[in-house]
Amino acid sequence: MKTLRIQTRHREQFIDITSDVNRFLKEKKIDEGLCIVFCPHTTAALTINENADLSVKEDIVRRLGKIVPENGSYLHSEGNSDAHIKSSMLGSSLNIIVQAAKLVLGTWQGVYFCEFDGPRSREVYVKLIGSK
Amino acid sequence: MKTLRIQTRHREQFIDITSDVNRFLKEKKIDEGLCIVFCPHTTAALTINENADLSVKEDIVRRLGKIVPENGSYLHSEGNSDAHIKSSMLGSSLNIIVQAAKLVLGTWQGVYFCEFDGPRSREVYVKLIGSK
Amino acid sequence: MKTLRIQTRHREQFIDITSDVNRFLKEKKIDEGLCIVFCPHTTAALTINENADLSVKEDIVRRLGKIVPENGSYLHSEGNSDAHIKSSMLGSSLNIIVQAAKLVLGTWQGVYFCEFDGPRSREVYVKLIGSK
Repeated sequence: MKTLRIQTRHREQFIDITSDVNRFLKEKKIDEGLCIVFCPHTTAALTINENADLSVKEDIVRRLGKIVPENGSYLHSEGNSDAHIKSSMLGSSLNIIVQAAKLVLGTWQGVYFCEFDGPRSREVYVKLIGSK
Repeated sequence: MKTLRIQTRHREQFIDITSDVNRFLKEKKIDEGLCIVFCPHTTAALTINENADLSVKEDIVRRLGKIVPENGSYLHSEGNSDAHIKSSMLGSSLNIIVQAAKLVLGTWQGVYFCEFDGPRSREVYVKLIGSK
Repeated sequence: MKTLRIQTRHREQFIDITSDVNRFLKEKKIDEGLCIVFCPHTTAALTINENADLSVKEDIVRRLGKIVPENGSYLHSEGNSDAHIKSSMLGSSLNIIVQAAKLVLGTWQGVYFCEFDGPRSREVYVKLIGSK
């Protein structure tokens, strides 16, 4: 297992970590299998989405903010209930097939760390399971 | 594969099953790998979220109820369309890295079974894939 | 890894691919393990939900359309921001346990390819990881 360290700069921010995950795959020399990317935080998430037009991630953040407003009538007293809810909606792990020691992604797909309660120092775990 | 049996008590209820899953890991003696937790029901789901302040899970249930109201104008005649939709939004499986025969979770993370159409007798499947 | 080819016919359409995935499992002769189903597109997704009453998938499509309208005020200029957002909400991969060379699904569960920006020619990747 490898731990990636991420410093987020804003309350809400999507950071492309595709190349960081691919770098780990090269080191491990596992040609074929499954790559698990896991977010150990309850106010952040992981998602796969468009890596070309940066406005797509901005649209995702804005729409999630309408569905789950920061200032709703929440019980949790830390003021970040919206971040917890968004975390469950997008999910805390990704599974990506590995071939030739690289993530098998579509042309327009990038792997994003999704900060919903930053800025913070965050971690992402990456694990490889080999197959024949 | 192990089947966990869960009896839910309310229409909507999040139940922490982290210790049940960890117990299975101990029995299996697989030190390192991947743990898959799978919900075989279409009106329930699984999620990972805060395990300390119980109001977080209440906030998730309430907000989902606003986004996907129980009494919307649905086609499905069983009166539980909202539960089906929430099931797809949170997802039916989790993937958690295993090290030293334990789930690798963040400090504040717990594994939750999410009932959206209870009370019912439910099952959760747990599967381990070993790695070197 | 196997690539399934899917031709969608409408802008939004859920297509049951359960039997296609099970057919691949039979060919591979891996009795036990994990099946990963992966969508390499950023305006489509995968989900598991009811396979009996077809109105359930219609209810999911309609409700997602209310939460994430096609014509919102989006930045991305291609007019399909709603599809990108729905893709992240449902997710791009599924993990299903395999036993006796078949997907272990609940009685009412089917595996769906979710088109949000069709009609298009699409692909789905299926990968098997064996276990003992």
